[in-house]
Amino acid sequence: MSTKGRVTIPTDMDIVNDTIRLSEKWGADAVRDCDGTDFPTELKDVGLKVYSTYYTTRKDNAWAKANPDEIQQMYLMTPIYTAENDHLCIPLMKGLYADMLTPNTRDDITRWWEVIDRSTGEVVPVTDWRWEESTNEVIIQSIPFHDYTVSFLAYIMWDPVHMYNAVVNDWKDVEHQITFDVRQPKTHAFTMKRLRKFIEEHPYVNVLRFTTFFHQFTLVFDEMAREKYVDWYGYSASVSPYILEQFERESGYPFRPEYIIDQGYYNNQYRIPSKEYQDFQAFQRREVAKIVKEMVDITHECGKEAMMFLGDHWIGTEPFMDEFRHVGLDAVVGSVGNGSTLRLISDIEGVRYTEGRLLPYFFPDTFHEGGDPVKEAKVNWVTARRAILRKPIDRIGYGGYLKLTLDFPEFVDYVESVCNEFRELYDNVKGCIPYCVKRVAVLNCWGKMRAWGCHMVHHAIYFKQNYSYAGIIEALSGAPFDVSFISFADIKENPDILKEIDVLINVGDADTAHTGGEWWCDPAVSSAVKQFVYHGGGIIGIGEPSAHQANGHFFQLSNVFGVEEERGFTLGYDKYNWEEHSHFITEDVTGEIDFGEGKKNIYALEGATVLVEKEKHVQLAANQFGQGRAVYISGLPYSFENSRLLYRAILWSAGDEGRLHQWFSSNFNVEVHAYIENKKYCVVNNTYEPQSTVVYKGDGTEFALKLEANQILWYEM
Amino acid sequence: MSTKGRVTIPTDMDIVNDTIRLSEKWGADAVRDCDGTDFPTELKDVGLKVYSTYYTTRKDNAWAKANPDEIQQMYLMTPIYTAENDHLCIPLMKGLYADMLTPNTRDDITRWWEVIDRSTGEVVPVTDWRWEESTNEVIIQSIPFHDYTVSFLAYIMWDPVHMYNAVVNDWKDVEHQITFDVRQPKTHAFTMKRLRKFIEEHPYVNVLRFTTFFHQFTLVFDEMAREKYVDWYGYSASVSPYILEQFERESGYPFRPEYIIDQGYYNNQYRIPSKEYQDFQAFQRREVAKIVKEMVDITHECGKEAMMFLGDHWIGTEPFMDEFRHVGLDAVVGSVGNGSTLRLISDIEGVRYTEGRLLPYFFPDTFHEGGDPVKEAKVNWVTARRAILRKPIDRIGYGGYLKLTLDFPEFVDYVESVCNEFRELYDNVKGCIPYCVKRVAVLNCWGKMRAWGCHMVHHAIYFKQNYSYAGIIEALSGAPFDVSFISFADIKENPDILKEIDVLINVGDADTAHTGGEWWCDPAVSSAVKQFVYHGGGIIGIGEPSAHQANGHFFQLSNVFGVEEERGFTLGYDKYNWEEHSHFITEDVTGEIDFGEGKKNIYALEGATVLVEKEKHVQLAANQFGQGRAVYISGLPYSFENSRLLYRAILWSAGDEGRLHQWFSSNFNVEVHAYIENKKYCVVNNTYEPQSTVVYKGDGTEFALKLEANQILWYEM
Repeated sequence: MSTKGRVTIPTDMDIVNDTIRLSEKWGADAVRDCDGTDFPTELKDVGLKVYSTYYTTRKDNAWAKANPDEIQQMYLMTPIYTAENDHLCIPLMKGLYADMLTPNTRDDITRWWEVIDRSTGEVVPVTDWRWEESTNEVIIQSIPFHDYTVSFLAYIMWDPVHMYNAVVNDWKDVEHQITFDVRQPKTHAFTMKRLRKFIEEHPYVNVLRFTTFFHQFTLVFDEMAREKYVDWYGYSASVSPYILEQFERESGYPFRPEYIIDQGYYNNQYRIPSKEYQDFQAFQRREVAKIVKEMVDITHECGKEAMMFLGDHWIGTEPFMDEFRHVGLDAVVGSVGNGSTLRLISDIEGVRYTEGRLLPYFFPDTFHEGGDPVKEAKVNWVTARRAILRKPIDRIGYGGYLKLTLDFPEFVDYVESVCNEFRELYDNVKGCIPYCVKRVAVLNCWGKMRAWGCHMVHHAIYFKQNYSYAGIIEALSGAPFDVSFISFADIKENPDILKEIDVLINVGDADTAHTGGEWWCDPAVSSAVKQFVYHGGGIIGIGEPSAHQANGHFFQLSNVFGVEEERGFTLGYDKYNWEEHSHFITEDVTGEIDFGEGKKNIYALEGATVLVEKEKHVQLAANQFGQGRAVYISGLPYSFENSRLLYRAILWSAGDEGRLHQWFSSNFNVEVHAYIENKKYCVVNNTYEPQSTVVYKGDGTEFALKLEANQILWYEM
Repeated sequence: MSTKGRVTIPTDMDIVNDTIRLSEKWGADAVRDCDGTDFPTELKDVGLKVYSTYYTTRKDNAWAKANPDEIQQMYLMTPIYTAENDHLCIPLMKGLYADMLTPNTRDDITRWWEVIDRSTGEVVPVTDWRWEESTNEVIIQSIPFHDYTVSFLAYIMWDPVHMYNAVVNDWKDVEHQITFDVRQPKTHAFTMKRLRKFIEEHPYVNVLRFTTFFHQFTLVFDEMAREKYVDWYGYSASVSPYILEQFERESGYPFRPEYIIDQGYYNNQYRIPSKEYQDFQAFQRREVAKIVKEMVDITHECGKEAMMFLGDHWIGTEPFMDEFRHVGLDAVVGSVGNGSTLRLISDIEGVRYTEGRLLPYFFPDTFHEGGDPVKEAKVNWVTARRAILRKPIDRIGYGGYLKLTLDFPEFVDYVESVCNEFRELYDNVKGCIPYCVKRVAVLNCWGKMRAWGCHMVHHAIYFKQNYSYAGIIEALSGAPFDVSFISFADIKENPDILKEIDVLINVGDADTAHTGGEWWCDPAVSSAVKQFVYHGGGIIGIGEPSAHQANGHFFQLSNVFGVEEERGFTLGYDKYNWEEHSHFITEDVTGEIDFGEGKKNIYALEGATVLVEKEKHVQLAANQFGQGRAVYISGLPYSFENSRLLYRAILWSAGDEGRLHQWFSSNFNVEVHAYIENKKYCVVNNTYEPQSTVVYKGDGTEFALKLEANQILWYEM
């Protein structure tokens, strides 16, 4: 077992000796600085590879101030205001943190701003509104009691991540770092020189950790410096007249602010994407890739490695899309919040290695008196480990102020154990495709672009409205399936892709991009899916799968799932199918199933098998459709028990229940992963308590086993 | 206090003496027969007015069999079938009770049937399908994995109500009564003669109780004789080629079966009505009214009264619509299931008197060993009484087999007390408009046509999906408000109608006819409502008021209500307004408010006042909008406590909290009704236990009072 390597440790000016001590203890082979820390040059020759954060778009206010026209911009929409009479004054900065954003009145506001009558959806002619500088309001000649919004461009005068770090750490008197736009000509030229200069001035740096490239995900704060809006996938802050004019030329149609504003929904991933937004994303991917490549080339030319941080200004890079593969990056590093975010990193192709920054981040919000960083670290590691066992990252690391860990010796010891366990694990699974029981595809409007990140709003953060759906993705991230993410457009383009899939999953609320909405009214799509199931495929729907009110259905696949939702329109139909049945899928259920938020008003059609109903709302049902099978689940938050239920649902829907006892643990708190090529398998206890189980090997033979809390045991085949 | 009159008693051949005894005990002044009973001629001269049921459309199978082309018909849609290859066989009678319906293949099926591709919504050309007589299937040249339905006409070979009565009472060897269509020429002519003949043969009859006119509400049974589909408001059984050709000529556009079928939703009242369906209803109202008038005229000519039963074949009469006023009926009688159904009868204009048939119906489903008819009667009476105190019916009565009551002497006594109480009440309130605190209008797509019956599927029967909304209508039925029902079209036609209203109510689920759906995208409507509130009007929204996804809102009045629903599209927006506040509206709340099914995912906008939130779902909120006020409630099943909450919400939203202590009971189990013109008021205990309260009179003076269970006390002003 290796006791060194594959680990990155953070450092700072005031912790040189402890950095060396801890890097030895943890077996770190690389050292890094962070936002708010500096690299002590004493460490440059201690045998650690040196990463340096490189801020492409900030930390040079002199440049930004000298080139105010190339400060980054974002599109914002005001709240919806109702006109009380024939003129309406809309204050632009209401609800926004004044120091962060400044409306762009430098460019032609009649071209780049848009006032919309939200009662009709129509654009208000530019002759019917004006911006009043003295009050920073837009004054509209309004129709009484119509609703209005103003869409406007604003300069980002304080980088949102810098602001966040400053607020969280209570940094005093810090100069607000202004973000400049590397896409624009002056800054582009300047940036390439600046990069070369940085490398020249930091000869001891081995790896440039780009933090990040050019466009910040959407993050806005309100007057009280509280988070107002966040979308880790948001493109609203990747715009400027320069960029948009280029887009207009390439797309061949006139740009409208509404393409970005999207009624104030900002094209978040729950919205069924419009053609224009998809065009814009594709354009951004191409343009961002070009300049990333330029910077990577310079980095390589200077003999350094180029690593990208998958976060902050990552917008436009889209690691799962084709453009990304060709930029030449050496590595990607990202924050690991759970199994899904781990796969968000480890599934990236086209880089030599990936690195996961484990939690907790060494910030005072966790490392304070009474804080319990060990607990957070354990949850993080055990959660991530499931996913690592399916598709490992190549390295792990930590970030923040190393000094803060010194008061937590138990934490320091725990990190040591994590590093050792990671190295052992990596040695065992490296380069090997783990045994996959089934090929499972998640079907939504985004496909591979939002692989592992579907149902993710602010990275791994909990949302009441989606944890019951995100739980599916989380379960899959550590489950023995070959998981892909496909879009409706993929099916439409080539229905044969369904031939490579055993089980389809459609998960989310009605009329969102995750279930597809009106896509189901395209018979090319709906028929392909029905045909797939009819000929023996499996399908699992969670929440309101295939739901869109049309043609006498709400669930467009109601005949397939055998369930439908009562929305008032079928109250007149008597519903007799309520009896619960025992079933293969629920055989390991220990008590009441946790459906999370679940769904109400679902009823079973004749012939469907109800597995669970609560107060006349079906929560779980199974249905035969031709030679195929469908499972309906109202919601499934992530838990070990629910993960097992999903596992069984996948096997059953694929018509392969017989395969249950292969590389399987009778106790669902314990999982088994097999690596046929490497002739190894492991048994892993995902809980913080000892567990007993019966392990089934690939040939069906079994043995009883007791595991310690969190334990992972490796076996040769 | 009168001890006689205003009461109708049922009778039968085998209970002559007891009929006389009970009619004296109850003070009955009229006697009636029922479906399944016969009138004993011994009773024709005992001083009771004699009602006779008259079945306009059945009880003459000889005629029906001799004129099979004029047997009534209905439109039916098969379930949605998925084609597995290029031909699909759809069995017409699957899921239907074979003896009840026979597909009409006599008329041109290529004209009157319709095969629809439900994957595209397109009609399948008649050349691509055929009916196979041997199997009673429709065989379609299908596109593989498209969904299909067949819409077809079927003859009604067993009157659904007769079938229902036969099944409930286990009638053996009863000949199935076939329904014939009075609208068609031969039967029309025959019917008028038959009516005259009936009157001639029953000279002792004073009142013809038409049961009913021509078209049965939609009621279909499945293979097991279980109810399959029911819609008390359904028009699907009011069709025939004869009628539809006439409609086609009058409407000026070609008829399509889909106008009635409506994707299998059969235009139930939750569907936003299409223009074609509204045209058809209007046509039916006109045509039905013509023939009703003809029969009423004959009845009058023969010196009898004409009474209509509001039920069974009542479709097309629509008592709240203008056509009805001119048919000349003397009376309407209907079943009283609760306060709403009472108002459904008592609010009818254009007749001399109305009568409520109280429950329980004397059928063995209640009157059996171990049954508790007194309990049912009490609940029915106390529930109805609230509404009677607002708008009295003129008479009460009972139906069924009188003999069954003989084993329940306590019931017989209770009915006596009800009859006495009704007469006292009637004497006190007769001809007087009760004191109304506010003018309240329920706003939906139907307006007055579904007055009191909105959110009603099968008369007063409970549905899990709508009791939380029907509760509002039920509360209003007995509350001191001047209640009207208006439609979006009414507002569009004349926004000034809002000037006659203090508080608007919009109650139901999103995109149903009850909340309005896309109607809110018509600025003429939405602006009129916003203007109404802004200038001081009140609005109360329950469930998903004004909800339709468009223009950056789900709740189109989100600015007015101060709340919005999270459907995934605004997860990126941080939501900080969760703190609960005490409020005028909730001052009488005793514990946890019962919101019924409630709603999830509702959040408050900045500035709104949250009154109740449960697990980060707002259930009750108040908001100021201009000079007006809005209240959001997630659901409000009927209860005395909820009725009080609604009362307070109405007063608050109207900005008139000061009026609370006028004709008011501090205890919400007790209600006060004032009749200024008659200089009387009453205090009524709605519960089955004694109650103490403080009664506030119109001038605000108060006195304490104890009431016995169910007691009603009358006072002079």
